[in-house]
Amino acid sequence: MKITAIDPIYLRMPEITTAADGTQDTLLVRIRTDRGLEGWGECDASPLVSLAAYCCPMSHGNIINIRESLVGETIDTPDDVRRLHAKALRNGSDIQQIDHAYSGADIALWDLVGKSLGQPVYRLLGGRKAYPKKPYASVLFGDTPEETLRVAQRIQSQGFLAAKFGWGPLGKKDAEWDVALVRAAREGLGSKAELLVDAGWAYGRDVETVLDRARRFSPYRVTWLEEPFFPDAIPEYGELARRKPAVPIAAGENAATLHAAENYIDQGGLSFVQIDAGRIGGITVARKVVEKAAAKGITYVNHTFKSRLSVASALHAFADVEHFKYLEYPGSGSPLAETLAAGTCDRGPDGLVSLTEAPGLGVKINLDCVRKYAAPVRIDISGKTIFTSIE
Amino acid sequence: MKITAIDPIYLRMPEITTAADGTQDTLLVRIRTDRGLEGWGECDASPLVSLAAYCCPMSHGNIINIRESLVGETIDTPDDVRRLHAKALRNGSDIQQIDHAYSGADIALWDLVGKSLGQPVYRLLGGRKAYPKKPYASVLFGDTPEETLRVAQRIQSQGFLAAKFGWGPLGKKDAEWDVALVRAAREGLGSKAELLVDAGWAYGRDVETVLDRARRFSPYRVTWLEEPFFPDAIPEYGELARRKPAVPIAAGENAATLHAAENYIDQGGLSFVQIDAGRIGGITVARKVVEKAAAKGITYVNHTFKSRLSVASALHAFADVEHFKYLEYPGSGSPLAETLAAGTCDRGPDGLVSLTEAPGLGVKINLDCVRKYAAPVRIDISGKTIFTSIE
Repeated sequence: MKITAIDPIYLRMPEITTAADGTQDTLLVRIRTDRGLEGWGECDASPLVSLAAYCCPMSHGNIINIRESLVGETIDTPDDVRRLHAKALRNGSDIQQIDHAYSGADIALWDLVGKSLGQPVYRLLGGRKAYPKKPYASVLFGDTPEETLRVAQRIQSQGFLAAKFGWGPLGKKDAEWDVALVRAAREGLGSKAELLVDAGWAYGRDVETVLDRARRFSPYRVTWLEEPFFPDAIPEYGELARRKPAVPIAAGENAATLHAAENYIDQGGLSFVQIDAGRIGGITVARKVVEKAAAKGITYVNHTFKSRLSVASALHAFADVEHFKYLEYPGSGSPLAETLAAGTCDRGPDGLVSLTEAPGLGVKINLDCVRKYAAPVRIDISGKTIFTSIE
Repeated sequence: MKITAIDPIYLRMPEITTAADGTQDTLLVRIRTDRGLEGWGECDASPLVSLAAYCCPMSHGNIINIRESLVGETIDTPDDVRRLHAKALRNGSDIQQIDHAYSGADIALWDLVGKSLGQPVYRLLGGRKAYPKKPYASVLFGDTPEETLRVAQRIQSQGFLAAKFGWGPLGKKDAEWDVALVRAAREGLGSKAELLVDAGWAYGRDVETVLDRARRFSPYRVTWLEEPFFPDAIPEYGELARRKPAVPIAAGENAATLHAAENYIDQGGLSFVQIDAGRIGGITVARKVVEKAAAKGITYVNHTFKSRLSVASALHAFADVEHFKYLEYPGSGSPLAETLAAGTCDRGPDGLVSLTEAPGLGVKINLDCVRKYAAPVRIDISGKTIFTSIE
């Protein structure tokens, strides 16, 4: 079949704050074909900047937009998805945003091919069985230990087997403050659920402080300590690993290319590598990191802080690897993120999340939600409209 | 003084082709202050995608646009330029395009502070003397050896002491073809001028072929062989270095972050690292690579394929390091690139290019050129205009 239309669709909440909450807006991508099938994907990226990569005028042979690369192309098989990924990234190789922006298109193409072939995406990737995953509720720390306690109690009452607390006040005062926050999270969760801590770059490049915090957090049984450093602090991650911190270290959500992910793995010495299929160029690239992590003996985890469409996309990439058992699972998203693909990847009675055998991503998009939160975009250059959102 | 306005200005030629010619359009950035001073910078990046990073609506605390980060800020000293760089990149840390887009703003801020303090930028960076550089005409290979010969003869007649031929037909057929192109370039240049070859990713990840071509090109006295591999082929660059190719290897123009440049230096084993200040986040980051290259004993070279504004910006970053002697110097740009900042960084009677002691970047922008090639942009979201180009 032929690709006939690529529609990047900007959705957002009426009010947006500076909170580290990625569910306040999103860029959906819909791809349509001449056979009437459509596929959907979602980027975890600036909607407007990414949308510009779909429609920007050509600058030369290395700055050609995504629509130009895809419309009119043949899409029938997984190899077509990979071929188009290579083509679009080659054509857009001097567009820095290309990986973030293309992620939604790549995911939509996998969805499309899966629907066309009647197969779930994880099988198209070579998987034979989709294993259930342990979802961890991903939430922000409350502003104080007391608030954090309440958030943790709510999560506990929702029956989560694991929860990750991140960003907000952590690292803003001293060691006692940090410990009080982590202690409150553990207390609220009770003794059974796994506790994960996301430091949100709080310690910059300070290896000593991270070793100290790891030691102090360890009694609260922390499964991992995430992103203690700035995203580009690969040498510091490497040094930390050599000095054997008291809790395992996780990072990688900012990786926008396979090469960046490989750096985290090869030089950063991580125990967990966290990849966002909505940033790294889609399922095609995420799958390569899954394979690399498996070969290196470290654990792959998704990074997801968008709708269930993104949860499903993320999960297809590693569903077949039984020992990659964690699934990041936004625990308190905006109404936009909570309704866009509701009913997909719900937790089962055992608290785990499993893929179904539905074709493609197995996701149903709520078009009422799309209409409700749509932020139509129009871009004119030299008086000519080069982009206008679909109705 | 306070920043009062940030204007990204899209300029382009009436016709744009897929040729690897970066001078067909550009994104200028003008920054104005309450003291009436203004600074100018230029990005080597997709104009529309980069412009979107100046005005995109906030998504959360890690996606805040460049204007929002800068307007109203104090700018008096080099430390302010560095502080604002850190602020804008922190605020835009989940905008992948941020480094490309911010480059023009960073360059404009250095220009502004230099004008305000009455100092050329290279002195603000700690330089005591600006050494003359050997400009190499940077041109594309002709489509055939015969055409390449004519291009080389033209360059030779223009008195260039060095010339780089790149992209186009190289690597498209076989070894004999590649050698015929390089031989024609050498023949046209005569025996005196230095010859540099830019393979433009022609050999993918194929280390054996690059070793072969280096051996075959070596008799034509090639100063360096540039970008034989894809930009992310760092392991292949490393392997190539360990196997001692017959000509020195250069790469790095795609580095969009300090970390990426460090990877090229530390793992790629390059002889020359090529940095575009208009992509890597401006002069602030380019200067850090200059210092790193100096410490590592490899040669820093600018990558520049835009107007003389970009040539001057590039040069200020490394003018004070005497043994970094080459200057990439677009040899056949569009009328847009050739008139935008004409009269800046012209070659002297000795064929070399020197900075003057003029304050800031020492560049005068041709406003007639800006008006002639302006491509006004207007962006509406949900019926509200969020960006419109200045008149």
